[in-house]
Amino acid sequence: MFKILHTNKKARRGEFTTVHGTVQTPVFQNVGTLAAIKGALSTEDLKTVGCQIELSNTYHLHLRPGDDVVHDMGGLHKFINWDRPILTDSGGFQVFSLAGLRRICEEGVTFNSHIDGRRIFMGPEESMRIQSNLASTIAMAFDECIENPSPYDYVKASCERTYRWLCRCKDELMRLSKEPGTINPQQLLFGINQGGTYDDIRVWHMKKISELDLPGYAIGGLAVGETAEQMYHILDVTLPYAPEDRPRYLMGVGTPENIIEAVWRGVDFFDCVMPSRNARHGFIFTWKGTMNMMNQKYERDPLPIDPDCGCPVCRNYSRAYIRHLFKAKEMLGMRLAVMHNLYFYNELMAKIREAIEEDRFEEFKNKYTNVLSRRN
Amino acid sequence: MFKILHTNKKARRGEFTTVHGTVQTPVFQNVGTLAAIKGALSTEDLKTVGCQIELSNTYHLHLRPGDDVVHDMGGLHKFINWDRPILTDSGGFQVFSLAGLRRICEEGVTFNSHIDGRRIFMGPEESMRIQSNLASTIAMAFDECIENPSPYDYVKASCERTYRWLCRCKDELMRLSKEPGTINPQQLLFGINQGGTYDDIRVWHMKKISELDLPGYAIGGLAVGETAEQMYHILDVTLPYAPEDRPRYLMGVGTPENIIEAVWRGVDFFDCVMPSRNARHGFIFTWKGTMNMMNQKYERDPLPIDPDCGCPVCRNYSRAYIRHLFKAKEMLGMRLAVMHNLYFYNELMAKIREAIEEDRFEEFKNKYTNVLSRRN
Repeated sequence: MFKILHTNKKARRGEFTTVHGTVQTPVFQNVGTLAAIKGALSTEDLKTVGCQIELSNTYHLHLRPGDDVVHDMGGLHKFINWDRPILTDSGGFQVFSLAGLRRICEEGVTFNSHIDGRRIFMGPEESMRIQSNLASTIAMAFDECIENPSPYDYVKASCERTYRWLCRCKDELMRLSKEPGTINPQQLLFGINQGGTYDDIRVWHMKKISELDLPGYAIGGLAVGETAEQMYHILDVTLPYAPEDRPRYLMGVGTPENIIEAVWRGVDFFDCVMPSRNARHGFIFTWKGTMNMMNQKYERDPLPIDPDCGCPVCRNYSRAYIRHLFKAKEMLGMRLAVMHNLYFYNELMAKIREAIEEDRFEEFKNKYTNVLSRRN
Repeated sequence: MFKILHTNKKARRGEFTTVHGTVQTPVFQNVGTLAAIKGALSTEDLKTVGCQIELSNTYHLHLRPGDDVVHDMGGLHKFINWDRPILTDSGGFQVFSLAGLRRICEEGVTFNSHIDGRRIFMGPEESMRIQSNLASTIAMAFDECIENPSPYDYVKASCERTYRWLCRCKDELMRLSKEPGTINPQQLLFGINQGGTYDDIRVWHMKKISELDLPGYAIGGLAVGETAEQMYHILDVTLPYAPEDRPRYLMGVGTPENIIEAVWRGVDFFDCVMPSRNARHGFIFTWKGTMNMMNQKYERDPLPIDPDCGCPVCRNYSRAYIRHLFKAKEMLGMRLAVMHNLYFYNELMAKIREAIEEDRFEEFKNKYTNVLSRRN
């Protein structure tokens, strides 16, 4: 399913084939938490901005509209009108970051819904059943996401349990694939590596989960409190123990610089709310660094956001107009900004892929890592 | 400029040619108050929903971003990326409905901005200069919009002044058309008939403004307190005195039923915030009546909003999905609903035009006036 087409040092140019089509990697997954991309983007817009995989959130969709509703509507693809791959997270991260009053035990986690406070239980089997109802292309394993830093002994015990949970996820998904009501019997399971900032736990855990021969592996529990340098260090230490021939997914990351650094270390999949969330506040990514569209200096600026960008927003609208939309609180401003930022992220990945193919990824990295974080 | 292609009793099937293209009438103008359609619709979306004319608001754009900014950016068409006709209202209605503490005199109106409270003066010349800066296709005359009912003597005096204002609008627009900085020297001026609910004032005023030989005439001051029956009565009484060979525009109207009844009486142009505003609250127009997308009964409804509708929303999304988006407060819900409702209104006009052409408008009217207001 995963084919490495070319490598340039540790960076990998690959192709991941699924029942919903083939993904060119490295890839950025565009986040649609509630079965919709924030900023009023339709799935047609998603195609326009070059999205290859849409990511939706298991926890959110379980609460609203309910995964049973999505199942009855034929699964997420049909529900949201998207025929390319969809990855669903496991709910683990949200249970630990959004829900209140959680109690964790061997079976799973009991927590309060962040919407109406009602008590909910979710364990590996529940997460798999929900994701099976959603019928995503890729289901993520149910794990405990620990904040950084956490005590060594807690992290170790948690990772042992997360490993046991992963085995249960695998078994449950196998069982579900044979159930008559299952919409996507070929749903793929990605394991998630945890271990906080402890090298030895990360390595031990990666070795353990690699034995399970899953179609993909994620690095979780990063971008949750540690520095970028710590994150890169963990990738350096852990990735050598991930299977070469499976995609590696760095969850919830990150800035353009973070992504380039992680590709440099051998990561293939990414996702982050940053491009869409920043856009909704008027913060824009360009090939010359970031911009704040609310800035007075754009009031009469007839240029597109980024003259070097080929996105539909930059082809059709001026900075002055987009600034006006933000100042006037017109929703269209958010939509155009989100479209531009997602196009930028998807374009960034396309340029990364090209640079790897042409054996000049180090040059690309040196050229862009600093430029892209510059504030204009 | 206005050519009547066919009549069916009083209903008119026409063609209005401007420097920004030709409009097929009867036509519904899609309202983009702040130089954007609410609900995050782009101008590309507007074309998708069949919009022929976009309407923007002089008062709003004068305050934000400022008509001088729009002028410096090359006028509204370039600013918003729209190459078809744009009509700007005069600011009159907003000055009387939105602004605070207004003082009216022969020269014009002094009022407080609804944004920051600053004191602003607007008279016929100011309105024309602002609209000339905006460079719309059609400028509307600056008038006093009186609420219904108002005392006879006040309405009479007001209409006499509105007539004098119209003469000043015409002179000022003529002067501006010869100014070097004017973006659209062929900007058209539509006069506005007022007179509250008094037949004789309406008729007197329509006769007076007809003498000015303007490219179009509007009926203003309706849908501001009177009943639908009173509105239809005023159209019956007043329109015989409007020039046959000029388009007639019923401002701010209305429901599908109102529009059909007004076309029946000889109206050619309409505009209303109803389709977009209702959509943003989940209220939808269909060929079988109205729907509330928040209704529980749509939770698992796999049908499109309106199975008889050919809009991109009805071709791609289910009621269940759109209901979910509204319940989850995802902006995409509003956008899809606005797209559908505007498509419906534009389609309604297309079907009205067809019915007139085929001499079966009365049948059309009898078939639809009740159906379209039915609540489902």
